[in-house]
Amino acid sequence: MLNFTFHNPTAIVFGQGSIAQLSERVPVNARILVLYGGSSAEKNGTLNEVRTALQGRNIHEFGGIEPNPTYETLMRAVDLVRSNDLDFLLAVGGGSVIDGTKFVAAAVHYQGEPWGILESHGAVVQSAMPFGSVLTLPATGSEMNSGAVITRRATKAKLSFLSDHVFPRFSILDPTKTNTLPERQLANGVVDAFTHVMEQYMTYPAGGLIQDRFSESLLQTLIDIGPRVLDPQPDEEARDNLTWVATLALNGLISAGVPEDWSTHMIGHEITALHDIDHARTLAMVLPANLKVRREAKRAKLLQYAARVWQLHEGTDEMRIDAAIARTEAFFESLGVPTRFSAYGLDATAIDPIVHQLEAHGMTALGERSDVTLAVSRQILEAAL
Amino acid sequence: MLNFTFHNPTAIVFGQGSIAQLSERVPVNARILVLYGGSSAEKNGTLNEVRTALQGRNIHEFGGIEPNPTYETLMRAVDLVRSNDLDFLLAVGGGSVIDGTKFVAAAVHYQGEPWGILESHGAVVQSAMPFGSVLTLPATGSEMNSGAVITRRATKAKLSFLSDHVFPRFSILDPTKTNTLPERQLANGVVDAFTHVMEQYMTYPAGGLIQDRFSESLLQTLIDIGPRVLDPQPDEEARDNLTWVATLALNGLISAGVPEDWSTHMIGHEITALHDIDHARTLAMVLPANLKVRREAKRAKLLQYAARVWQLHEGTDEMRIDAAIARTEAFFESLGVPTRFSAYGLDATAIDPIVHQLEAHGMTALGERSDVTLAVSRQILEAAL
Repeated sequence: MLNFTFHNPTAIVFGQGSIAQLSERVPVNARILVLYGGSSAEKNGTLNEVRTALQGRNIHEFGGIEPNPTYETLMRAVDLVRSNDLDFLLAVGGGSVIDGTKFVAAAVHYQGEPWGILESHGAVVQSAMPFGSVLTLPATGSEMNSGAVITRRATKAKLSFLSDHVFPRFSILDPTKTNTLPERQLANGVVDAFTHVMEQYMTYPAGGLIQDRFSESLLQTLIDIGPRVLDPQPDEEARDNLTWVATLALNGLISAGVPEDWSTHMIGHEITALHDIDHARTLAMVLPANLKVRREAKRAKLLQYAARVWQLHEGTDEMRIDAAIARTEAFFESLGVPTRFSAYGLDATAIDPIVHQLEAHGMTALGERSDVTLAVSRQILEAAL
Repeated sequence: MLNFTFHNPTAIVFGQGSIAQLSERVPVNARILVLYGGSSAEKNGTLNEVRTALQGRNIHEFGGIEPNPTYETLMRAVDLVRSNDLDFLLAVGGGSVIDGTKFVAAAVHYQGEPWGILESHGAVVQSAMPFGSVLTLPATGSEMNSGAVITRRATKAKLSFLSDHVFPRFSILDPTKTNTLPERQLANGVVDAFTHVMEQYMTYPAGGLIQDRFSESLLQTLIDIGPRVLDPQPDEEARDNLTWVATLALNGLISAGVPEDWSTHMIGHEITALHDIDHARTLAMVLPANLKVRREAKRAKLLQYAARVWQLHEGTDEMRIDAAIARTEAFFESLGVPTRFSAYGLDATAIDPIVHQLEAHGMTALGERSDVTLAVSRQILEAAL
C-alpha cells in the first residue's frame, strides 16, 4: 500500500425530506447565494423546497450554470457575490453546479485573474468561501470532494482544479430528487460513477487489498442497479444506492493508498470541449478503448476485474480479459450509452484536433505510470472509432 | 436504505515514517499532554519518535493508561491537564489509550462529576479539548470515530459514550508499529475488527446494497490476511491492510443507512469488567453463540454471509447457515482465540453475575430490533459455555 493522507470533512445528510435540514446546516446570519442550473430545479420543486427551508434568511439567487460550467458564466456569479458582499454559497443541482460553485468560492477570495486557479490546477488557492450543496443528480461525486472541472468557452479549454479549501461544508442527498430526472441523465450518472471507480482501480496491484475490494463492491453494485435505475417506475432501493455509490466513487476513499490513472477523463474532457458531447458519454467511448490499448500494462488488474466483478473464470487469460472488456462495453450500451465515435457522428478526422488539444494542455504523460503519451492517446482514440 | 448523517472530520496520515508529520499536525503553540499506556511505547521507540517530532514544543507526559482504561486513572490525567493549563492532547497507543484520551478531552471541559459523561452515554458533552492520536495497535477503530469505552474499577462498570466533540483532529497510522506487537494482540485486533463489522452487517436486509458489499469486503480481507498477520516475519501487505481495515471497520462508513446490532459488545463488556478477559476474546465467545441463538431473526443475512463471505453455495439453507457459523468459530480459533467459556476457565456459574450486571446497566433490550432481553442474553451465554 502507498503512504497516504485521507481527510474528508464534508457532512453528508442523506434521505428523503433531508432538504428541510438546510435550516440547521446554513449559518443563521449567512448572506447566501443560491446557485443553480437550468429550469429543472424550478420546475421539479427543488428550489422551492430550498426557499422554504431557508425562509426568512438573506438569500440571493444565480441561475443558468451550464452542464460543463463555463468560466464566463461563473465570473458573473463572482461579481454578484462581491457586489452584494455575500458570505455563503449554496449549490442546488448536479456536478456542474457544484463544480461551478467551488470555482466561485475560490475565485471570490483569489487576488489575481481567476483563470489562474485552473491553470495552476488549484495550487494558487489559499482560501475559499464556505459553501454547501443540495444534490439533484448523482454522478460526479463533486458533493463530497475537493475537485472541479471548468470550461472556458472562448478557448474551448476544459481544465480541472483540486484544493482542500473547496470541500463542501455539507451536502444534502435526497435520492427522491432522481425521480424527475430524464433516463439519459440517470444512465450518464451510472457510467460516470463506474468510470470514476475504474480510474482508481484499473492500474496495477499495489497491495491495497481493501481498496480493491471496495472498488469491486462499487462496480458490482452499479452493475446490479444500472438497469433498475432506468425503470420508469422509480425503484427506491436502486436510486438510494446509486446516489450513495456515486458519492463514494469519488470521495477519496478508494484512491487512498493506491495508484490512479485518470487518462480516460483527460481524453474525454477534450472531446466534450470540442464536440459538446455529455461527459459520461465521452467516458463510455474512451474507457473500453483505453483498456484494449493498454491491456499489457493493466494485465494483472484486468484479470482480477474479470474474476471478481464479472465472475469470468473459464478460458485463457486472454479470453477472460477480452470478455471483461466486452462486458464493460455491453453494460454501457445496455444503458443506452454508445461506446463508439461513429454513434456520435464522429470519424477519424476528429482525432487530430483532440490530440492537438491534449498537447496544448500539457496532457502528454498521462496514466498511473505517466506512459500515456500523445501517441498512446491517439491509439486509444483510433480504437474507439 | 435508512436516512443517515455521515460526518467524519478526522484526518488520517498513513504510512511508514508518518509520525514525523506530527510537527505539522499539532498546533505550534500548543501546551501538549502526551498520554500513553504501559512500557511498550517507551521500549519500542514510538515515544521517542513522538518526542523527536515535537522537539522544542511544550510537552507533558502521562503514562499508565490500562487496557480497559479506568476512570480512576484518567481522572488523574484530568487533574494534570487542569493544573498545568494544557490545551492539546496526544494519545500514543491503541484503542485503550485513545478511548481514555477522549474521556479526558470531554471531562476537562465538563462542569459536573465526569462519570456523568458515561452515565449519559455522552449526551451531556457540549465541548471537548482538541486531540490527535498516534496509533500503535490496529483493532478498535477509535482513531477515526467518536466513541469510547471506560471502566470504573470501584464498581466493575464498563460503559461507553459517543459524542461528535471527540473525533480526533488527526490520527497517524504507521503500520510498521505492529512489528513489535505480540501475536496475541494482533490476533485480538483481527477478531475485534471482524466483530465490529458483524455488529453493523449481520442484522436484516435494509436495502443498503453498497454498505453490505463494503462490509463483506472488510470481512473477506480480514479472513485473507488474518493468518498472514501472525507470521513472525512481518508481512508488510497484511499489516498495512489490517491497519486500514480496522479503522474502516468502525469509522461510521458501513453503518450509515443500515440497522446495527451491538449486543455482542454489550454482553462482552460485562464479561471483561467481571473477569478481566481481553475485549476481543469476549467477542470471540459471544458472537458465534449470538448467531446460533438468533439465527431465525438473522436468517436472510446469515445466508448472504454464507454465500458472499464464505462462498458456501451447496446444501440446504440450514446447512449453509450452520457452516457459516462454524467457519466463523474456526477462523477465530485458527488465530489462537478460543470461542468457548470453558477455554477461559469459566463455567455456568459465571452466567448469573453477567446477566445481573446487564440488568444493572439497563442492557435489557439489545440488538437491531431491541429484542435481546435478559432472557435472550442468558441463552447466548449458555450457548457459549
